Amino acid sequence: MYTPDYLKNFTRRVFEKMGCPNNDALNIANVFIKAELRNLPSHGMTRIKDYFQLWEAGRINTKPLVKTIHETPGTAVVDADNAVGMIGATKSMRLAIEKANKSVTGWVATQNSNHLGIGSYYAMMALEHDMIGISMTNANPMVAPTNSIERMLGTNPITVAFPAGEQPDFIADFSTTPIARGKLAVASAKGENVPFGYVQDKDGNPSEDPDIMKKGGSMLPLGGDLEHGSHKGYALGAIVDIFTGVLSGANFGPFVPPFLAYLPMPDSSVGNGMGHFFGAIRIDGFSSPEEFKKRMDNWILTFRNSKPIKGKKVLIPGDIERDAEERLLKQGIKILPGIQNDLNKVANKLGIDFEMKN
Amino acid sequence: MYTPDYLKNFTRRVFEKMGCPNNDALNIANVFIKAELRNLPSHGMTRIKDYFQLWEAGRINTKPLVKTIHETPGTAVVDADNAVGMIGATKSMRLAIEKANKSVTGWVATQNSNHLGIGSYYAMMALEHDMIGISMTNANPMVAPTNSIERMLGTNPITVAFPAGEQPDFIADFSTTPIARGKLAVASAKGENVPFGYVQDKDGNPSEDPDIMKKGGSMLPLGGDLEHGSHKGYALGAIVDIFTGVLSGANFGPFVPPFLAYLPMPDSSVGNGMGHFFGAIRIDGFSSPEEFKKRMDNWILTFRNSKPIKGKKVLIPGDIERDAEERLLKQGIKILPGIQNDLNKVANKLGIDFEMKN
Repeated sequence: MYTPDYLKNFTRRVFEKMGCPNNDALNIANVFIKAELRNLPSHGMTRIKDYFQLWEAGRINTKPLVKTIHETPGTAVVDADNAVGMIGATKSMRLAIEKANKSVTGWVATQNSNHLGIGSYYAMMALEHDMIGISMTNANPMVAPTNSIERMLGTNPITVAFPAGEQPDFIADFSTTPIARGKLAVASAKGENVPFGYVQDKDGNPSEDPDIMKKGGSMLPLGGDLEHGSHKGYALGAIVDIFTGVLSGANFGPFVPPFLAYLPMPDSSVGNGMGHFFGAIRIDGFSSPEEFKKRMDNWILTFRNSKPIKGKKVLIPGDIERDAEERLLKQGIKILPGIQNDLNKVANKLGIDFEMKN
Repeated sequence: MYTPDYLKNFTRRVFEKMGCPNNDALNIANVFIKAELRNLPSHGMTRIKDYFQLWEAGRINTKPLVKTIHETPGTAVVDADNAVGMIGATKSMRLAIEKANKSVTGWVATQNSNHLGIGSYYAMMALEHDMIGISMTNANPMVAPTNSIERMLGTNPITVAFPAGEQPDFIADFSTTPIARGKLAVASAKGENVPFGYVQDKDGNPSEDPDIMKKGGSMLPLGGDLEHGSHKGYALGAIVDIFTGVLSGANFGPFVPPFLAYLPMPDSSVGNGMGHFFGAIRIDGFSSPEEFKKRMDNWILTFRNSKPIKGKKVLIPGDIERDAEERLLKQGIKILPGIQNDLNKVANKLGIDFEMKN
């Protein structure tokens, strides 16, 4: 087990060694550790190697000049200057909040960015300001639109955070696919099939093969097949792609560059880097924050107390991650041996230490 | 076959006879006919009987005073005064557009309203202003959250409309469930089962029975079951409920009043009527509209030309409804005999004519 502080300091030093200014490195480390604490390790320490390799390949900028390239009192487009995703994303969300402070709502589209980690980190920044927070990002293409066999969309996640009063805040954070890609790797490692509705083969036939992506297959949108509403999952992923990619001036759809250094860049480009979109909405644009939070408490209690299926529990979006955070803050964070090895290699190359544990 | 004009005039007269001012009746008729033309008849003429019965039961207000009860330059809460849904919705979306004209973005939450017909009608109002249009509504509860057996959410649809240039506009309009409830009625009438993933029985077991709603069952969120991401469909439906119900001061979740006069009102209330939420975003808050529309054209062509599954066609959200509109404008609109009978009865009670056709 590692303490969150140990991992945070290690991550900070990795990014400092890669050339990030101290503040940026701390910002990046905070997002990584939040992912681990919220038990979303696929967006946590495992990504450090990926970022290191991108840096080695000269594909990210650790000394970026993040700048606003288009602006109105309530909206902006930010050019993240090919920074580590957390840098452009944090600055963009901060700008959305500043704009909402003055103009009631603030909306920022970000271009020329990279993988931002967990979207909930940014949406949750709005909560302490009595604002609703929204975060979206596009991602490299793995998902076929309904009736298509081509990988055209990323898993394109959406986060919406609503502040509550005495109840814990409502934080919905979900990809627009039935599963995150990591589930396929887990099934493959276990030698198990996956249920129908996650992936299709290269001709568009339903598939249970967790390795189908290596054989020309593609992931399916939320809904799985047309009969179960995959055209709605496709529409939702497309909406995210347009807000984050088209509106921002970033790349969209199949042109979004891969996060992995060993994958080639797309042949052509329709914009700059990866795209995000952030929103901050002041509650008092609609009602007193006190009144809204009371209503949120009532909403949360009403849903949490709805009749469960026997033996199950009805959850509010955010419950699982919050419970994990409370638990892991006390217990510490487990890092799988393979990831420890990766981190150790990165540490060696950068001339710093990583403590291996059982 | 009926001409759109015949049906529009008939609908206008029905609502005038029920006491609506001329302008309101025309507004309502426009939304009903748009639903028929876009081949969404479940939101078209079949709903006239439902509105007539609500009016007979004294449950809607045909002479409403729709008023803004909270306001900032870019946001508002509208009290629709228990009007026919189209009235509060059209006025609210118009207000969102006015606010966006002055403040770049405009956001309106609407309380004390009723069934608004097709959400795309309102989102599309933004397009001619070079704005992105957003529309959401909650609805009477039929959907169980993941792990619950209780009907807590409506089908809670979302519409997002993006303007394009030479290509037709992108208009995504979808409920947050695999199917609209109407599909169950159709299967039931044909004596057919429905696929697993649409509904569950009163104990939360998967069910293929299209009549399960009459036996204590419930509809499932988009995704169908937990394994296929129903918690994401539940989160999306919940987000819609909070924007439309909690933020507006309307009823939310299980408290949303039913649209059918023969169903009792809920025992208790947590707000006023049904809730909607509307957004209008000026494109020039982010880039020149010309540049954005060129990028949208490129997005649309890229996705439309992605490799299809053999024998299938890759569609852009809005394609099916737009094709239907072109076709039905020429062919005319078919009204099923049962619906014709309903309309004839309504006409007789109001002392006007409805022409029955084969």
